[in-house]
Amino acid sequence: MPETNVISERAEKTAAAPRDVVRVGIVGYGTVGRASAEILASHAEEIKQRMGGVSVVVTRICRKSPRDSEYGVNGIQVLADWRQVAAADDVDIVIEAIGGTTTAYDVVRTSLENGKAVVTANKALIALRGEELFALASQKNLPIGIEASVAGGVPVIHAISEALAADRVQSVYGIVNGTCNYILTQMEQHGIEFDDALKQAQEAGYAEADPSLDIDGLDARDKIAILARIAFGHTINPSEIPVSGIRNITATDFHYAHRLNSTIRLVASAERTAKGIHVAVQPWLEPRDSMLAKVDGANNAIFIAGAKVGTQMLYGRGAGGNATGTAVLSDVLHIAQQIARGHTSASNLTGFYSAEPLKLSPRSQPMSWFLRLTVKDGPGLLARAADAIAHEGINIDSVIQEPHMRKDKLSFVMTLEPTLEATVERAVQAINQFEFMQQPVLLLPMISSVEEHV
Amino acid sequence: MPETNVISERAEKTAAAPRDVVRVGIVGYGTVGRASAEILASHAEEIKQRMGGVSVVVTRICRKSPRDSEYGVNGIQVLADWRQVAAADDVDIVIEAIGGTTTAYDVVRTSLENGKAVVTANKALIALRGEELFALASQKNLPIGIEASVAGGVPVIHAISEALAADRVQSVYGIVNGTCNYILTQMEQHGIEFDDALKQAQEAGYAEADPSLDIDGLDARDKIAILARIAFGHTINPSEIPVSGIRNITATDFHYAHRLNSTIRLVASAERTAKGIHVAVQPWLEPRDSMLAKVDGANNAIFIAGAKVGTQMLYGRGAGGNATGTAVLSDVLHIAQQIARGHTSASNLTGFYSAEPLKLSPRSQPMSWFLRLTVKDGPGLLARAADAIAHEGINIDSVIQEPHMRKDKLSFVMTLEPTLEATVERAVQAINQFEFMQQPVLLLPMISSVEEHV
Repeated sequence: MPETNVISERAEKTAAAPRDVVRVGIVGYGTVGRASAEILASHAEEIKQRMGGVSVVVTRICRKSPRDSEYGVNGIQVLADWRQVAAADDVDIVIEAIGGTTTAYDVVRTSLENGKAVVTANKALIALRGEELFALASQKNLPIGIEASVAGGVPVIHAISEALAADRVQSVYGIVNGTCNYILTQMEQHGIEFDDALKQAQEAGYAEADPSLDIDGLDARDKIAILARIAFGHTINPSEIPVSGIRNITATDFHYAHRLNSTIRLVASAERTAKGIHVAVQPWLEPRDSMLAKVDGANNAIFIAGAKVGTQMLYGRGAGGNATGTAVLSDVLHIAQQIARGHTSASNLTGFYSAEPLKLSPRSQPMSWFLRLTVKDGPGLLARAADAIAHEGINIDSVIQEPHMRKDKLSFVMTLEPTLEATVERAVQAINQFEFMQQPVLLLPMISSVEEHV
Repeated sequence: MPETNVISERAEKTAAAPRDVVRVGIVGYGTVGRASAEILASHAEEIKQRMGGVSVVVTRICRKSPRDSEYGVNGIQVLADWRQVAAADDVDIVIEAIGGTTTAYDVVRTSLENGKAVVTANKALIALRGEELFALASQKNLPIGIEASVAGGVPVIHAISEALAADRVQSVYGIVNGTCNYILTQMEQHGIEFDDALKQAQEAGYAEADPSLDIDGLDARDKIAILARIAFGHTINPSEIPVSGIRNITATDFHYAHRLNSTIRLVASAERTAKGIHVAVQPWLEPRDSMLAKVDGANNAIFIAGAKVGTQMLYGRGAGGNATGTAVLSDVLHIAQQIARGHTSASNLTGFYSAEPLKLSPRSQPMSWFLRLTVKDGPGLLARAADAIAHEGINIDSVIQEPHMRKDKLSFVMTLEPTLEATVERAVQAINQFEFMQQPVLLLPMISSVEEHV
């Protein structure tokens, strides 16, 4: 990475006169946009005091289809055309809150081109096109605030990029999708199947009508793609990250997990290995008394392990208008302070400026594994599965099979002693070829404690 | 609080030319000072890259009694006189790492007077004299970084002051003293008495030869005094905070706590009530499956509840050179970025600038209570204790007494249904008058879940 002249390239914007009002335009007036406007209005006095006398006010709001003469917070007319925000003279900071990666991209790009700072909670946009947008922002000496894009109100972007600025991150991992965690918690607590838990999550407003972005792990993938850039300082193409969602997790899996004094959580992880960075999204088997297993409902929790600082954990609400709006506004107020003082500067998230991608690598540490096989029962099949495992030189730690299961679709579990992922995957491929297999093996890494993992 | 002209009073320092080297002087070369210097040296390349090409280098080191021609990191001579750092032309940022509130105060004041930014991990100094130092820094438009003063490497100052800048904090509470938590964890896990656990903590390096600042709760008091200022925006005199330490906790208390499926942790707390802010340091009885109870050894965990953002938790190592040094350096690098861009500005921790103190109030919510009575056994004493409780209109929830205890020093426990603190304290005062009491009642609030508390 070229390091010379970086200062002059990213020097702060020519100083303007100090100001006591900073103006915010909001594009997208759904849950997050509206919550941001409402918090800014209802906490206005405290915010002004905390800002040393600087007021931060919403001057423009855009939503796709405003009702006739709709007025948002403080009587501000709601506009239909986002360009009326992104190009407005009376807007200093644009909050992009429409989501998606097409119009949202145009909104951010146009706002930056017009000299406006941007704050967004849009993890899909930043994961997919962050590099282009940060490059443009850097040219313009403008910040892009993305604290709200991962883990809602939990300040995980700051924790990695600023709090650990002097340290070397070893791993970042955790629960970053509240929808999946809600579904898994419901399955764990009520012994219900995935489809029923999904339906409950939809009824409770934790899952979309089309839940695939969440339950297939794609939302978590976008979030770990952002965290990995910030932690390890290089770009990453989210589509290169291996992802397993939670559609295949059954009530029986939770039953067996309980037998092992464990539970199941969808974990996004990025960790330094001898050969590069291992990044993945997949369900893990976690001891029930671990801190990760204590994260229930729609909450998020992110562990960050630094070479010097040790392991930290940040926990809180990962979604919802108020939590996400609070994170959006933490960026807005930070940028407003720069503007009030007469200068802005580009964000310092070096991973988005890197010319090279992260070198991805497989997991390098041997792990214990949980294998659930669903079979048509018959004599000799356990011996054949065990043979396939022995063939790879893997030791079986335990076999658990509940009595009285349906013979045509019987599930049993094997746990394996620490083995490299590539080795266990060869054994799984061999087992999946057997004619008695009713569906592919469910393979979960087993974490015996947080400390072991990091 | 006067709000006019705050901007001009705290305007940034006259812009200087952008620079590519920022120079750090370290006063105090013990665990934290040395770790800060070593991390800065060993991670120099990564830091320079993350800083956009700006180098941060140590130019001066002072320790009280340097050995003859002692050289610190990178061959820098170690000086004996702190003024050679605080007044040096080749120092931009002074790290105060000597501790205490006398010479440390002089170091910070002199450094600020000489136009140097300051970073410190000194919670006692900031708790006691933060207002004077922040006022001076504000006059000089210089920042004071205090992230390391509470919870070591865990970025709790940022989480309250920046991440929740748009929210209204309802409560901040948690485990902020690793020494006490280590001792309580040892007592819990090994069934040992306080004195033995303290000895182990001293042998393991977690407790000082004179452990009173830790075990009597004074260190935790200083930390919650800092957090309360930042969360609630007014000054506070640490000596007004009620404090109970952990000297009186016995192995028997842990035995009874286990019977109640709970454990004991020293908790520092500050929370908004109808009549002001309740601030306290005292041991709590916590359910064993709560997140707070999962915090073991010398770790710290802080819960922050915001009106909008909900409850967050930050967890990690609260002490040790590397964790604290990482936090010191997060402030150093943040300030170095300002200096490299040619301007510094005063810290935004409004509580330290307030003209009025926090209005302290008693707890306003009724809580459940754990009372341990240590008595000389005899007929009728349970009835008399129960009478004293009934006299205040309090319902007893349970009584637990193990068989086969020493008759002359028998301990038993009563738990009470939710009651105001003032009411239960009257009952305790009455009980303490009884001639059969061998020592004062141990009174602990019982938290049935985090969510209930916040």
